[in-house]
Amino acid sequence: MAQILADRRDIDFVLHEQLKVESLSGHERFADFSRKSIDLIINEARNLAVKEILPTQVDGDRVGARFEGGKVRVPESFHKAWKALRAGDWLAMTEDPEWGGQGMPRVVATAASDYLMGANFAFMMHGGLTHGAGKLIETFGTDTQKRLYLKKLFTGEWAGTMLLTEPEAGSDVGALTTTATPNPDGTYTITGNKIFISGGEHDLTPNIIHPVLARIEGAPAGTAGISLFVVPKIRVNDDGSLGEPNDVVCTGIEEKMGIHGNATCSIALGGKGGCRGTLLGEANKGMRAMFMMMNDARLMVGNQGLSCASPSYLYAVNYARTRHQGRHLLKMMDKSAPAVPIIQHPDVRRMLMLMKVYVEGFRSLFYYLAHNSDRIAVSDDADEKLRIQGIIDFLIPIAKGYVTERCFDVCSLGVQVYGGYGYIREYPMEQLLRDCRITAIYEGTNGIQAMDLLGRKLGQNQGRPVMDLFEEMRGTLAAARDVERAAPMAEALEPALIRLEEVARHMGTTALYGDLLTASAHAHPFMEVCGDVVVGWQLLWRAKVAAEALAAGAKEKDAAFYEGQIRSAQFFNAVLLPVALGRMDAILSGCAIAVEMPEDAFGAK
Amino acid sequence: MAQILADRRDIDFVLHEQLKVESLSGHERFADFSRKSIDLIINEARNLAVKEILPTQVDGDRVGARFEGGKVRVPESFHKAWKALRAGDWLAMTEDPEWGGQGMPRVVATAASDYLMGANFAFMMHGGLTHGAGKLIETFGTDTQKRLYLKKLFTGEWAGTMLLTEPEAGSDVGALTTTATPNPDGTYTITGNKIFISGGEHDLTPNIIHPVLARIEGAPAGTAGISLFVVPKIRVNDDGSLGEPNDVVCTGIEEKMGIHGNATCSIALGGKGGCRGTLLGEANKGMRAMFMMMNDARLMVGNQGLSCASPSYLYAVNYARTRHQGRHLLKMMDKSAPAVPIIQHPDVRRMLMLMKVYVEGFRSLFYYLAHNSDRIAVSDDADEKLRIQGIIDFLIPIAKGYVTERCFDVCSLGVQVYGGYGYIREYPMEQLLRDCRITAIYEGTNGIQAMDLLGRKLGQNQGRPVMDLFEEMRGTLAAARDVERAAPMAEALEPALIRLEEVARHMGTTALYGDLLTASAHAHPFMEVCGDVVVGWQLLWRAKVAAEALAAGAKEKDAAFYEGQIRSAQFFNAVLLPVALGRMDAILSGCAIAVEMPEDAFGAK
Repeated sequence: MAQILADRRDIDFVLHEQLKVESLSGHERFADFSRKSIDLIINEARNLAVKEILPTQVDGDRVGARFEGGKVRVPESFHKAWKALRAGDWLAMTEDPEWGGQGMPRVVATAASDYLMGANFAFMMHGGLTHGAGKLIETFGTDTQKRLYLKKLFTGEWAGTMLLTEPEAGSDVGALTTTATPNPDGTYTITGNKIFISGGEHDLTPNIIHPVLARIEGAPAGTAGISLFVVPKIRVNDDGSLGEPNDVVCTGIEEKMGIHGNATCSIALGGKGGCRGTLLGEANKGMRAMFMMMNDARLMVGNQGLSCASPSYLYAVNYARTRHQGRHLLKMMDKSAPAVPIIQHPDVRRMLMLMKVYVEGFRSLFYYLAHNSDRIAVSDDADEKLRIQGIIDFLIPIAKGYVTERCFDVCSLGVQVYGGYGYIREYPMEQLLRDCRITAIYEGTNGIQAMDLLGRKLGQNQGRPVMDLFEEMRGTLAAARDVERAAPMAEALEPALIRLEEVARHMGTTALYGDLLTASAHAHPFMEVCGDVVVGWQLLWRAKVAAEALAAGAKEKDAAFYEGQIRSAQFFNAVLLPVALGRMDAILSGCAIAVEMPEDAFGAK
Repeated sequence: MAQILADRRDIDFVLHEQLKVESLSGHERFADFSRKSIDLIINEARNLAVKEILPTQVDGDRVGARFEGGKVRVPESFHKAWKALRAGDWLAMTEDPEWGGQGMPRVVATAASDYLMGANFAFMMHGGLTHGAGKLIETFGTDTQKRLYLKKLFTGEWAGTMLLTEPEAGSDVGALTTTATPNPDGTYTITGNKIFISGGEHDLTPNIIHPVLARIEGAPAGTAGISLFVVPKIRVNDDGSLGEPNDVVCTGIEEKMGIHGNATCSIALGGKGGCRGTLLGEANKGMRAMFMMMNDARLMVGNQGLSCASPSYLYAVNYARTRHQGRHLLKMMDKSAPAVPIIQHPDVRRMLMLMKVYVEGFRSLFYYLAHNSDRIAVSDDADEKLRIQGIIDFLIPIAKGYVTERCFDVCSLGVQVYGGYGYIREYPMEQLLRDCRITAIYEGTNGIQAMDLLGRKLGQNQGRPVMDLFEEMRGTLAAARDVERAAPMAEALEPALIRLEEVARHMGTTALYGDLLTASAHAHPFMEVCGDVVVGWQLLWRAKVAAEALAAGAKEKDAAFYEGQIRSAQFFNAVLLPVALGRMDAILSGCAIAVEMPEDAFGAK
């Protein structure tokens, strides 16, 4: 069977040749994670993904989550897959074994997720949200909260969610109106209506634990008055057993463009006055807690984009290799020439190259980010930890905002490679495109990500993180210059790096001292050009490693793979980098038209 | 009620200020089409679109065309809308009244279609295909064929289709295997299987007329042996009445990503040996006939793209004006500042500007193309006719291939402006995106369009058409230079025009004398940069007209509209043109990687 979710050779390349993650096992914390055990984990994740999760993909889309009498039923196959996920402890791979985790390095978990999420990210969201809810409780919870909820979440006995959005509080979380009234016993009575709650109700697990953002009566307006609560669907007795229902009612689910397998719920809290929760962390510090969780969630959403793009690419390559259509271009005049596989047509190759460079560049980016977290975890050097965390923080809006848009483009190219067959349900391409589209929207629209990059991350710590990132890139450039076949690629990328530094200075200065509105109108393109250069950097890094391997005499079966790495970087530099440079010119133009445009001039009313 | 399909002010602007189409009424053929009668036609089209066709949009998507026992049933509302279309003679607006047409200039019909197709292009495809089938019979049919079919098609009593694709003959039409065996009575017995037949079966009309591509027994292989036949679903007696069924069987319909209202059928011809057709035009000249029809069909598909993008833009502008979310960016620190309509957020404005420039640029392009056809129709100057037709032919692959991709982008931006609401069915945005996606695929994938532009159109008549197009553009630049506020925009666009001429020479030379494969790997970006400059040109033309109107003292209610035209051109030049120039650099790099990439280097198997 052809590989259809993620390219194992590529996963191993990033883990062991680009990042050399095995060196983590030199530290006590990750001592168990030798190359051999990493291989086993990835093997198991792949098996689980293909055998148990992939069958939920079509079910999730066609049967979907169904709302019946206040309850949501997931497709039958989801139950089996959830059981398998739990059996293998896949829900909290990176967490403390004491609470049901596997203590895995993040980078290994990310590689495993390449398969698990690639098989059906809408299903895996249940796992991701459950893990996220657990993480909040682990970080901010009291001992009692941990005892009651944590292990049950990390082991998937119960599921978790995240209740932020309200009808009038979407991108503007601070506008929420759900209220929490203190009770004499220390609990709070919660009242409000939440919408767009992914996995807010389902029958996968007997209980669902909702972290809820609400405002304690009398708290300040805006985000400064928001607190976080733990609100179980079913109340939990002190011995951990299930008690009475908690007046948490799913009032409906949305009909969506995709991810039908994951119910998007409207939730009424305390409609009958009987919804009780406990404060999680400090009063009025709820947003801070959510932000911590949001960073992980945003990375997860970026990964979801890749988990659509990676299968889309592999399906497209497989299809292009086997679908015969049309004569070879150089034999167009020879009526007797046979039809060739469409991978021989230049325009199909152009599309496949575009898909390849993004999928591989993004895989490297996500593994690099996860590996950075692991490096922090094993480091004793406080400055180094800060430096790496700064780079991670700077890259998060890019890994969410930029990545999801390019992944949507990749999925659209995948549809195009299939031609008419790409548009019909019989093939997987159109679902990947529909599912992927949400990733640019939730967990903060990509416009929010762009503003986060410009308004928060770029100026963080006097601009240290972006300078540190440039320094990392220059390190890769310098290393590539020492490798014969990689040196010209380093030369090609360098002007873009220099130009991006100029763009970053321009954006920072304009936002701070010039015209914040105009800078903001270029925030999204700024995020895009940062992303472009990040991809170019990762591809150069890959090409340098590949060139070294080829120079050292690679085995024949590896040589094609390495050649592919070199060609990808060359293609990116020749075909995509000039477009990025053009976009940088556009940013530097400082065009204020979008801001100055009279509102009436947008036309029809 | 807000305008939601097309901006009437903009339609009138293009018709009467940019193109001054009323001058057509100076010619006998179009004498009836004064400004007043044009206004009436557009009014009626708008009423029909909003009242009768728009209600079919959601029905078409949710109920969809249904396949039951070999028959296809369209949603109930389609019948009512079809009746209204017929009642107003909207099916063959530009055709000879003798055969049921209205004799309208194409440009007026195109403006009417802006509304009709904007209301539901999947429904309107029935009309377009019916018109197209009629046009083939009008052009190539015998007197008998015309007598039997033509008026019934042009008046929508019966419907028409177009049967090209087979399972192994998609982009490569020449590979088709449907055969035609001559009978003693002059008819042919047709045998074969067709797929992806839009509107191939339905219950809108009592008969469906299928133009069918097939190969007469013994005819040459490839496209040179293909003939065209008229194959009715129900045989037609010589008096025009319906006879026996003709062994044309719908064997199933596709489940698709969108355009659910239009059944995509598999059709078995002559499964029981009883399918008869008559030759349409000359034997073995079927492809030539189809190409004629294809030009119109490709324009129609480009228009379909716009008919998704235009509503998407108007919905997004209306939503952005009324949806309050978040404080004004300059009042972010003031917790008591009110939420503002999201149109005040710079990133939302950026998205709306992008949507606006494409929608308006494309509207101008399509009206310009249609008007060009009208100018040919009223001209006596053979050279001028040739010149204009050359420009039309050159622009068709761009108006299909480039336009549909940018329209998909526009629809995706529309979803993004709506945020989470964009992804759910309750709002129209996600359907527009799904429906739009087909336009890049059918009637020749956009890869085919790009190859048509490079391989056929660019070199046509020693490159005369592309030079004539550049000449038209230079004319607009020169005219704009004489208008104070437009002159700087002409200056800004000129370098792109000069650069595009260089790119066109490079592409033509590479394709002819250098490396056809490498040139082909850049055919799609070449199509894109041609499209970019075409949009820039149309926007400049608009801005010049608007600047003149403002200088002459426009009424207050018009001034905002004209300002919008000027800002659009400025925005395009500052923000999008640099990206296009970057893409031109990429083309000129002549990068051959996509072609030279070893097949194995694409990775996983």
